[in-house]
Amino acid sequence: MHKQLLGPGITFFPQPTTLVSSVDADGKVNIMTASWVAMVSKTPPTLAVSLHHQRLSYANIHQQGEFVVNVVPADLALAADYCGLRSGHQTDKLAVTGLTTRRASKVAAPLIAECPLNLECRLTLEVPLGDYRLLLAEVVEVQATASAIDAHGDLDAASFDPLVYLGGIREYWSLGDKRATAYRDGLQLEKE
Amino acid sequence: MHKQLLGPGITFFPQPTTLVSSVDADGKVNIMTASWVAMVSKTPPTLAVSLHHQRLSYANIHQQGEFVVNVVPADLALAADYCGLRSGHQTDKLAVTGLTTRRASKVAAPLIAECPLNLECRLTLEVPLGDYRLLLAEVVEVQATASAIDAHGDLDAASFDPLVYLGGIREYWSLGDKRATAYRDGLQLEKE
Repeated sequence: MHKQLLGPGITFFPQPTTLVSSVDADGKVNIMTASWVAMVSKTPPTLAVSLHHQRLSYANIHQQGEFVVNVVPADLALAADYCGLRSGHQTDKLAVTGLTTRRASKVAAPLIAECPLNLECRLTLEVPLGDYRLLLAEVVEVQATASAIDAHGDLDAASFDPLVYLGGIREYWSLGDKRATAYRDGLQLEKE
Repeated sequence: MHKQLLGPGITFFPQPTTLVSSVDADGKVNIMTASWVAMVSKTPPTLAVSLHHQRLSYANIHQQGEFVVNVVPADLALAADYCGLRSGHQTDKLAVTGLTTRRASKVAAPLIAECPLNLECRLTLEVPLGDYRLLLAEVVEVQATASAIDAHGDLDAASFDPLVYLGGIREYWSLGDKRATAYRDGLQLEKE
């Protein structure tokens, strides 16, 4: 397991593929691809999203204080890539991708209907990090596509089919096989 | 695409599966599973890691200011799960998992040799978020297993075989198939 030095950089994976939806003061919707997204607290549920400060989505969220993080399914890889390549300053990305929106339950920004998991967020803190702004936001509601939830209320990963982004490698991948159940299977190591 | 409300919560995926390695003042190593990890800036390269404030890893990083984020391969799913279930206050997780360490190039905390991608980090800012501490850190060096890098210097995703964590569902999955090349394939939508 010989190692090679790559130097300082942003190569890191796997990452989520999400579309962030936001609105401006006139209610006009913009969507933008974001993979620099992570859950960061459960007291209260808090999501972190990092955006370049020149992005229209950043301006919308900074001004309106609300947004939705929509998890992208694998069959929308091209739409996700497109929404990262073009700016809402010049392009109506909903029109080009054919994605549709739906009213959220607690924030003014809409959900993306075709995305199976939608986290409604209210901005609580901004941290400037060079050209980027780390947006910390309380998750005030989570919505999921009903067909991905079974009779016990469990979420079926295969139905969600979330798209994985490999940052640094610049590739989108689907999920393969389930390898383990978390908070359980690791205890097998104590019996060996 | 009927939606169901799940309420506020931390269900979000896909997430990375990483092991964070750190040392205490005596140089004793601890490792801990972390999935609440994201790249958040490239000016300079900055990683965000959120840890519960009672974790030994948090104490180590808070005191020493350095750590390594190690990307977990799919064949180490049980070891990753174990290192999230047990605390370094009571358990020598390296001994139980059989994972081995190697000296990092720029920080005192070691790499985990079996992990194919290792990000050496220096703490720059802490943000308290309830019971959690969001640690923002500059990535001062990235190392990768040489066998996963081809002659052109490109990283081969299949060789890395990164383990994906589904937060909220509590499942670990492998990668499936490549679906698209980022920053390129999305432009096909403008031709349609």
